[in-house]
Parts: sequence; structure tokens; C-alpha cells
Amino acid sequence: MKHALSVTRAADFAAWYQSVIAEADMAEESGVRGCMVMRPWGYGIWERMQRLLDDRIRGLGYDNTYFPLFIPLSYFEKEAEHVEGFAKEMAVVTHHRLVPDGKGGLMPDPEAKLEEPLIVRPTSETVIGAAFARWVQSWRDLPVQINQWANVVRWEMRTRMFLRTAEFLWQEGHAAYASADQARAETMKALELYRSFAEECAAMPVIAGEKPENERFPGAVETWSIEAMMQDGKALQAGTSHFLGTHFAEAQNIRFQNAEGGLEPAQTISWGMSTRMIGGLIMTHGDDDGLRVPPRLAPWQVVIVPMLRDQPEDAALLDYARDIQAELAKLSAFGEPLRVLVDVKATKAATKRWGWVKKGAPVVIEIGGRDMAGGNVSVIRRDRLYREDGKLDSQVQARGDFVGAVADLLVAIQRGLHEEATARLKAAITPVDDWAAVEAHFAETVKNPGWVDVRWSKPTGAALDAVVERLKALKLTIRNAPHGQGAIEGACVFTGAPAVERVLLARAY
Amino acid sequence: MKHALSVTRAADFAAWYQSVIAEADMAEESGVRGCMVMRPWGYGIWERMQRLLDDRIRGLGYDNTYFPLFIPLSYFEKEAEHVEGFAKEMAVVTHHRLVPDGKGGLMPDPEAKLEEPLIVRPTSETVIGAAFARWVQSWRDLPVQINQWANVVRWEMRTRMFLRTAEFLWQEGHAAYASADQARAETMKALELYRSFAEECAAMPVIAGEKPENERFPGAVETWSIEAMMQDGKALQAGTSHFLGTHFAEAQNIRFQNAEGGLEPAQTISWGMSTRMIGGLIMTHGDDDGLRVPPRLAPWQVVIVPMLRDQPEDAALLDYARDIQAELAKLSAFGEPLRVLVDVKATKAATKRWGWVKKGAPVVIEIGGRDMAGGNVSVIRRDRLYREDGKLDSQVQARGDFVGAVADLLVAIQRGLHEEATARLKAAITPVDDWAAVEAHFAETVKNPGWVDVRWSKPTGAALDAVVERLKALKLTIRNAPHGQGAIEGACVFTGAPAVERVLLARAY
Repeated sequence: MKHALSVTRAADFAAWYQSVIAEADMAEESGVRGCMVMRPWGYGIWERMQRLLDDRIRGLGYDNTYFPLFIPLSYFEKEAEHVEGFAKEMAVVTHHRLVPDGKGGLMPDPEAKLEEPLIVRPTSETVIGAAFARWVQSWRDLPVQINQWANVVRWEMRTRMFLRTAEFLWQEGHAAYASADQARAETMKALELYRSFAEECAAMPVIAGEKPENERFPGAVETWSIEAMMQDGKALQAGTSHFLGTHFAEAQNIRFQNAEGGLEPAQTISWGMSTRMIGGLIMTHGDDDGLRVPPRLAPWQVVIVPMLRDQPEDAALLDYARDIQAELAKLSAFGEPLRVLVDVKATKAATKRWGWVKKGAPVVIEIGGRDMAGGNVSVIRRDRLYREDGKLDSQVQARGDFVGAVADLLVAIQRGLHEEATARLKAAITPVDDWAAVEAHFAETVKNPGWVDVRWSKPTGAALDAVVERLKALKLTIRNAPHGQGAIEGACVFTGAPAVERVLLARAY
Repeated sequence: MKHALSVTRAADFAAWYQSVIAEADMAEESGVRGCMVMRPWGYGIWERMQRLLDDRIRGLGYDNTYFPLFIPLSYFEKEAEHVEGFAKEMAVVTHHRLVPDGKGGLMPDPEAKLEEPLIVRPTSETVIGAAFARWVQSWRDLPVQINQWANVVRWEMRTRMFLRTAEFLWQEGHAAYASADQARAETMKALELYRSFAEECAAMPVIAGEKPENERFPGAVETWSIEAMMQDGKALQAGTSHFLGTHFAEAQNIRFQNAEGGLEPAQTISWGMSTRMIGGLIMTHGDDDGLRVPPRLAPWQVVIVPMLRDQPEDAALLDYARDIQAELAKLSAFGEPLRVLVDVKATKAATKRWGWVKKGAPVVIEIGGRDMAGGNVSVIRRDRLYREDGKLDSQVQARGDFVGAVADLLVAIQRGLHEEATARLKAAITPVDDWAAVEAHFAETVKNPGWVDVRWSKPTGAALDAVVERLKALKLTIRNAPHGQGAIEGACVFTGAPAVERVLLARAY
């Protein structure tokens, strides 16, 4: 069967991924190392994610704010682990002016060297912690819960669009509480927010759980994540929530007078989700015809393509299309008005149809003269593109029938994408009992091994380092210890000692 | 009469401005030179501006996108005027890693010096132009119209919260067209978008017009602005729209094949509005009790303050407040659902009342036990805070009457703020016929001279420089030549030559 993309997932998953991004006009290289240009369809999906996440973040009682892009170097020197974790990959501003270099070009002005270099934020715990120290004096000032939507920069050596870019967009939630119990509970609320957003909005099944010690955020006491499975069986960390304890509060002097008059450090947390999620969306829902966007995240849920032919009849066809658009725009799905576009670009109808298929608009309706004459529309569902005989499944429906059913159709498509991905995730997690079986499972000859679920004794320090090294030889990492697992029995797959919990092992992005 | 702020506009306008920002919890110094922290109330106003502007920008047919924060130095070397205009105030990234400095601190790693320095974008014409060059091949690819919401950095020597900060937030629209006529027309559409947004949403009367040659955006053929008048009579440039001609297209090779097969450079435009607008809002609508936010931009339009007293009766009072909130939330004003908060913070009711007065929430309703018992609410209008006897004007109203009237009340408050500012603007623009009268008008002894409206011959080059110098001695600048003025007669106030248009002269932020 012929498909819209020239490379299939089976043939070359990495090339397929790049091809979806290019063919769906989502993003492109910018000419700036490691930075991409997000084009309207890619950025539009991000805006949808923002809108839906933002509502949920406000629902948790957080307020939006904005903190500086630049963080003085000295702020990073305060929390030792945090420095250690981030110091290797930050963009450093050293000058504030350019002057002619005498060779017809420009150079940083040696006279305009900053006394203290500024770091382009890789994350904002330090600068937000400094504000918390100003804001928090008494237990009455707690909790403080703020969120920001921002760009951050981490100087990555190998970059990949959406998944790992030097600059990326994200939201970061930061909060301070009086007690560790409350802070831990709120860390878990943020994790649950991410889990439910991923499942309900992105139709992306995930496993929520705790990261092992070696994968913790620099300076965190606990790091929790949601892990999604891509179609090549690799894992993608799609959101993290950190319980920071008093590490940042001690380093930055965030202290409050408790009800008894004593002085205590606050307990802080932070959590983030980024444009990386779009990479996850592609590798979860894409197929050999391009992206399939879940209806809740689709910038346009229904695209109407009138078959214009540069003829006088075009005007009537366009009226018919606009009329249907107006009718659809009065409907709602998922509690929001339908998002409907009439594509009037000066391009052939077939090119437009396949353009929207590659972009993954959930429903495309084509309207030709015959459709209009019969009061019909021709409907293409992106999630069921082909008939059994391999031909494009374009169904002629009475206009009224389509309009009456479209909201339910979008809900069904959303649910279908989620079910398909959930079935794939479940089928690809294999419980394994001993190390030899892990090695066999991830042998080089196994094409799509998915993840394995093993028991371990949760070693720490040097013993954990040894485990990490063994995994590294198989290109594996510990993804997380799934949340809510019961007590377990049996032996640690690494050490043979009594196991204390289950963890997921996988190759990962 | 006593007011909520300790400093009045009349006593010290600059100190009053800072005091509003602090007392309304809008923003604060961040500890990073020239950068501020935008707190929830300040950022919330920006989010409202974003929402309303974004709808209008989409209405013009623009798509949102995102371009890199960093721009390679060489991009700036291409457009000579653009370099000249911006090279003096840019943050330069020279390194991508930190290492221990051997003294317990960190320093930029000499081994990690970038081959080509990166500039933190002061504006994005260069990097967006490079994308346009990739996207535009044929006349069929035009127009291209994109917008981005982003942070930008200009290294200002003297900074002032919202008005002039090293980092600020803005939107920048960029477009390319086939003909100069169309590009000019679209430049004016963007200007009109700003004018109508300022008047209708921010209740801020403005004068739209063309900037003189010496105030043009670096690289522009024409720069247009909207100019607002602050309560101290100074002007604030609140938004600009630039016709760039083919300057950037030539420098960056944005060329298209026209219908006849010839190769032409595209005609580009750009336009921007920033968080500076919030500074303008404060200085337009603030009074000696703090800010007054126009209802369309208020994060909360109605704030309900239950007079809680740590007593068992509090529960019933809170129910009453929440019930009113739910009833109000079903209403709409300005085509959007009402934004209503119940303030349950653990603070005294009087402190909360004055907190919301200083923040400028349009309507504050207080609810005590007596109000509840009578089925009433006590209503404070932020735009008419005091009775004639100088006491706070808190009016007891039947709950149903208040609910029935509140949407109209918000509309009336929005209109009232606009009318008040419009009357002030009109009264403070003085037509002046000769240079001696200009000097007298702006003599040091005149406290609030406003603007003057003069005729000029539109000198260019050295003759214009001479005019600018004369104005500088009076701390004046030419704001703009108002759009849509008819033909004029008379002599140029500067040169005595026949005048060709009227321009506004003012002191400015």
C-alpha cells in the first residue's frame, strides 16, 4: 500500500520522525545551532497544550508569573548539587554591546564585559527561590504556588527537533509549603495533573512513578515522572515533578516563622512539562501517512476543502463551505467550541487533502459540485484513512447527518487513539525475573523489545552506580518505579537481595 | 482627604508610579540588573492583553509561530542600518559551559567559547527574514503573515519597571507581500489594530501617526506609532508598525518569482506591542489610591470579600459569597464570562478591601453578616471610590439588583475611564504657531505642559538634525504626525518654510 510519507516507521523510525515534522509543516531547522523554528501547525499544537494545561494548573491554585531570563552566576553557586547537574550545559552572557571589529564585521565590545556573567535560565529554581525568600516571612504567607510559561536553554551536544533542543518552551510550577508532608502531597498532585493531561488530552498512556536516585533532578529529594512509550518501544520522559525538601530553602534562605514563633526552612517543589511533549505526540500517534493529532489538541479539528477549479461555480461552492463552517462553529466538543477551517489556499484540492492528512487534522471534509448539488459532504477520518481494499476511505454523507454526528465523532477519534496506544503500551511491557532474561530480551537481534518490568532492591550509592553501568552496556536506563504498586516478594534482578519494588527498564529518548 | 497610597501624583509622579507597582503587587525588582519579576496581578493584566490582542491578530490572518531566542552575530551584519540601531544594546552569549574557577566559584569555560557569538534577540527581523527567504519562492507563496509572543532583550542603561526593562515581553508581527502598496496598507492595518485595542480594551486614547525620520525603526522606510498621554503630560509610545520596504528582503534574499516570471524582492513589514503597555495603563488610569484596571483587562472584574471573623458564622457567609460568585460567573460582559473571585485569604477584611482598591479591581463587594441577613451586598466601585463628604462610597444593594446590573456597570466603568482619559488628552494638546510660543509653553516654570501641535516643513537630513537639537534643549521630541490630517497652510514652526503637515511635540517616556 502506498502512503503519504516516503519513509515508513518500520523502515527507519528516526528518518520517519523527521519526515513527519517536515511534511506536516510543524518545525524546521533555524540556522541557529540546536534551535528550531516552530511553524504554525507545530506551535498551534503547543498553544492547545498550553490552554488545557493552564486551566488545570490554575485549578490547583497556582498563579501565573514571569521571572527573568537571566540568572546571575552567583545564584548557581549556592546549591551544590544543582550546579553540578547544570553547570555543563548553559549559555553564558558575558558582554552587553557589540563594536566594529575593524574587518567590516562586529565583535563583543571588550569595554562592555559584564562584571558578573549572566546565565540564560536552564530552569528557574534559583531565581524563583530568591523571590520566595523575599515573599515568605511567616506561616501565614504559605503556601506560595506560582507557575510560569517560559523559554529555557540547555546547551545540548546532540539535538533533535522537539525532543532535545538547546532552547525549548515549557511551563515550570514552583511552590513552597510549611510541611514536608504537604509538599510531598502537592508534588504528587502535580504528577497526577501531568498523568491525566497526557491520558485525557494527548491520548497518551503513561506510567507515573518515581525516578531512581541517579536520575533525580539536581538538588531534589525525590523526582517523579510520567513515562510514555513510543512506537519503536523506546521510553520518553514526558513530565517531571520534584520534591526538593529544604535543599533550595537552605541555600536561598527561604525561612518562615511558624505558629510557635520558631524559624523553619520552607519545603519546596517544582515541576515542568515542555514542547518535548510534541515529539511524544508524533511518536505515539503518527503513522506512515504523517501525524494524527488527538482532537482535543488539534488547532483545527475539522478542515473543509472546497474543490475549487477557478470557475464561476467556485463562489457557490465557497458559500456552501462557509455555511457548513458556521453551522459547525456553533457546536461544542470536549466543552469547547469546534475549531473549523475552510482551506481556501490557491492550491489543488488533492494537494490540500494530503497536506491535512499529513498534518493529522482529525476530520477532513471535501466538497465538490456533486456533493453540493446533493446536499452532501465527503468525509475523511484521519484515524481510519483507508478501506479494506487499500483505497482512501472518503464517505459521502448527508450534510445534516454529518453535522449531527461530528461532535461524537471527534470524541470517538480521541478515545480510539488512546485505546490504540494503551493496548500497545500494555503489550510491550514484559515482566522479567532474572538478569539473563533481561539480557536476552534486549539482545541486538530483537527489533522492538519494549520495556521490561523487574524487581529490585533499590540499591544506592556505589551499588546503584554498578547497576547503572550494567544497564548502560545494554543501552538501558531505569525509567521509574511505578506509583501505587503494592508490597512485593522475590529477588532483585541485579543483586539477588530481597526486592523492595518494581522498576521499568527501557531504552529511551 | 486621605488616600491609600502614601505618595500622590501631584507630589511626585515618578515615586507615585513606583508606589502603585509595589502596592498593587504588580512587579518587583528581581536582583538581576534591569529585569523585573512580574507578579500575578501584573502578569495577569498582561495575559488579558495577550488574549484580546491575539484574537485581533488572528483576525488579520496571521498565524502564531516561535523563532529562536538566539541570533547569530553574522545575521546582524547584513542590514547596515539595523546593526547601527541595535548594536549598542544587546546581550551577547559567548560561552556554553561553566567550570570551577579554582576559588570555589564558577567561570565561563575557556574551552567552551562559541565560534560565533550569539545575540539574545532584541527583535526578530533578521532571523524571521531568513525563514521568509526559505519559504518564499513564488508569488503564490505570498503573503506570509506570522506573529510571535516572545521575550526580547535590549541592554538599557536606565531601566524603569514596565516602561524600560532589559528583558521585556511582547508580540511581534512580521509579514511579506508582493507589492509595496499592499505592504503599506497592511502596515496601516496593524497600526489600526493597535489604535482600536488601546482605545477599546485599555480605555487608553491614543494618537496614531507617522514617526519622523530620526525616530524610525533601524532599517524601516516608514515607522508609525500610537502615542498615549500620561497624567503628567508626557507621551508614551505604546505600539509601532513599520513598513520596511525591500531593505530586509535585499539583505536577506527574500525574493519571489512574479506572475511574469521575473525575480523581485518581497516587501516586508513588522509591528510590536509590549509589556510597556502596562506602564501606560498605570499612568493613564492610576489615581492616588492605586491602579484602576479597565474591566476588559482586569484579571478579576468583581472581587467578593466576605467579612470572616474566625467564628462559626463564617461558613454561612462563605456559602453566601460562593453562591453569588456562581451566579455572577454565568453572566457575560464584553462577550466574555465575568471573572469573579472570592477572596478567602486569612487577612483582615479591611486589609483585603484596600488591597483590591490598590490593585484596581473594578468592583469590590463586601459581605458581612448584616448584608447576608438582608439579602444584600455592599458595593464599592473603583472608579468612584469616595462620596462628596470624602468617605468611602460603599453602597448597600439588594443582591438581585446588583446581579442584574453588574454587566452594565462594568461596561459603564470601562467607558467612564476612556472618557476621562480622552477629555484629559484633548485638553492637554495645545496648537502653537511659532517657536517662541513653543519655548514659552515648555518653560521650566510650567508644571504640566502636555503636548503642542505645530506645523512643520518636514525637513530631512542635516536640517532635521538641527530641529532635533533645538527640541532636545527643551527635552522635547517629535512624537508623530497624526494620521489622516488634511492639507495644511502656514509656516513651519522651525524653519519658516511652507509647512506640509502637523506634528506633535512632547516630553516622553
